[in-house]
Amino acid sequence: MLVKTERGTKDLRAVWWEDGAVRVIDQRLLPDQLQIARIASYEEMADAISDMTVRGAPTIGASGAFGIALAWAAKSDLRKAAERLRATRPTAHDLFHSIDLMLKHGDNVVGAALSFADSIVSKCRRIGEAGSELIRDGARILTHCNAGALAAVDYGTALAPMRVAKRSGRDLFVFVDETRPRLQGAKLTAWELSNEGIRHAIIADNAAGHYMKSEVDLVMVGADRIAANGDFANKIGTYEKAVLAKENGVPFYVAAPVSTFDPSLETGDGIVIEERSADEVLSIGGVRVAPDGSEALNPAFDVTPGALVSGFITERGILGPGEFGRLHDPEL
Amino acid sequence: MLVKTERGTKDLRAVWWEDGAVRVIDQRLLPDQLQIARIASYEEMADAISDMTVRGAPTIGASGAFGIALAWAAKSDLRKAAERLRATRPTAHDLFHSIDLMLKHGDNVVGAALSFADSIVSKCRRIGEAGSELIRDGARILTHCNAGALAAVDYGTALAPMRVAKRSGRDLFVFVDETRPRLQGAKLTAWELSNEGIRHAIIADNAAGHYMKSEVDLVMVGADRIAANGDFANKIGTYEKAVLAKENGVPFYVAAPVSTFDPSLETGDGIVIEERSADEVLSIGGVRVAPDGSEALNPAFDVTPGALVSGFITERGILGPGEFGRLHDPEL
Repeated sequence: MLVKTERGTKDLRAVWWEDGAVRVIDQRLLPDQLQIARIASYEEMADAISDMTVRGAPTIGASGAFGIALAWAAKSDLRKAAERLRATRPTAHDLFHSIDLMLKHGDNVVGAALSFADSIVSKCRRIGEAGSELIRDGARILTHCNAGALAAVDYGTALAPMRVAKRSGRDLFVFVDETRPRLQGAKLTAWELSNEGIRHAIIADNAAGHYMKSEVDLVMVGADRIAANGDFANKIGTYEKAVLAKENGVPFYVAAPVSTFDPSLETGDGIVIEERSADEVLSIGGVRVAPDGSEALNPAFDVTPGALVSGFITERGILGPGEFGRLHDPEL
Repeated sequence: MLVKTERGTKDLRAVWWEDGAVRVIDQRLLPDQLQIARIASYEEMADAISDMTVRGAPTIGASGAFGIALAWAAKSDLRKAAERLRATRPTAHDLFHSIDLMLKHGDNVVGAALSFADSIVSKCRRIGEAGSELIRDGARILTHCNAGALAAVDYGTALAPMRVAKRSGRDLFVFVDETRPRLQGAKLTAWELSNEGIRHAIIADNAAGHYMKSEVDLVMVGADRIAANGDFANKIGTYEKAVLAKENGVPFYVAAPVSTFDPSLETGDGIVIEERSADEVLSIGGVRVAPDGSEALNPAFDVTPGALVSGFITERGILGPGEFGRLHDPEL
């Protein structure tokens, strides 16, 4: 991803290997500060995943792979390292997938982790190319949360088509849902779009419906897990935007690599929703906004029915909810 | 409204006349501090409406009436005072209505304003009685923004039925949308419900759809202006909740006094939407959350089609969108 710094524009990833250790952009400090953290052990990597220094399903997957690589390089017990890394965030499917993949490598786990991260980037680039065909010159797109390069090592999932369209010279405008309670839209997506020079405006999540009535041409979001029937889990609020898109006849696309599809789940009913701390709702920036006597409920994800999805943008092209059989077609 | 203070529980209004001046609860300081502001001139009242010391359509209406009363008591030019007060906020029909009403009084405008405020309270009490019939014991209700006593001098509009149901001994639970960008739900509605002893949880606006799938029995909101066909303006995000209620078969009720109905407007298309400062989105509690290069769009209201409304709870009973003719029936 392009990042503007005081010393010019750099091209960075969300996580990478350098000089025998891992480097990550500390996402907790954005957009105020761009700080690169050095992570030298699998324990430090587990902490970075837990405390959301790194976040976003594919980025967490790559971070898990690099965590095992750090353990391997330090000749630590890989099973113990895997256990520690798996215990960080309960819903991240990509994390378990990447750890399992690394454990299958007897030697050169560092090389395997590098290849794994590269393959995520390559898939996201192809998602960007496939999805960019949906973006006409002058398009007005709404997105929710951050499904950008920060979340997916580079390019992003939902933001990848916008990057490709912009770099191809098309003009576009993005409505960025701020995405309460953690404000990943206002803080991270807006930061990525600013760096990329893509015109955008942040809106309260409440305003998405208002703009969908007449101004939004297209909705693009990411996904954390997709069931066999197209039901998918994503950041809380995604379901609302999908229903509003249907009501207003606005096409609604989900961008995700094939690894996010979970054929073992028949429908979205089997997806467990992570409930996060009430403090994320009751306090903002450490200051309590609610009365002392009030509680909050804070589900981190919701499940959107596949029937509300116009198409899934993958590294193998754009698929309708009824076309998942094609994912297993080696010719695709 | 009942308000718990260190010296016991008081029964307060949002705005009242006392010793030749107006007193208001400063709503900007809630829920942290309960502070009563003294307003001694129509200019101060105009400022208090503009800066949202007082807010909510009926409370703004009463405040406008008291503003004219202050001008009358000070022997100021009433036309000039009316012009200044009208220029504060563009969407609320109640404000224009109350100012026009006061201008018709040649003498004792203070008495007329007192009666006007009393009549709002009496209407809200009747709204509460009519609407409470919709609330069964154990009901789970979702509300948006603050359509409570703070917004309507006393009782509230959408919160009035909940107050009446609670005081009648029914158990109920309220999902309180936090209502970004200004957080009137988290700050004001939660404060009123806490004081009233009504069980509730604050949720991010993004979570309303998730809970509407299975847990919400009923949605109740207020309105700032209702057109002849039932289209109505209310706090930004109301339209989203109405569409989600329809999608999930959840009854959606709008509570408002008859004065909020504007028969001069055929549809909601004629309603002017106030665009507020981008800072309300870009900064929270004075701290900027968005990147320096990012802008925001901040419409304060949206318009919900009358077709999405199950019924309008008024002081003259519950009306369907096709029954507005009955509003002019003196027998009702």
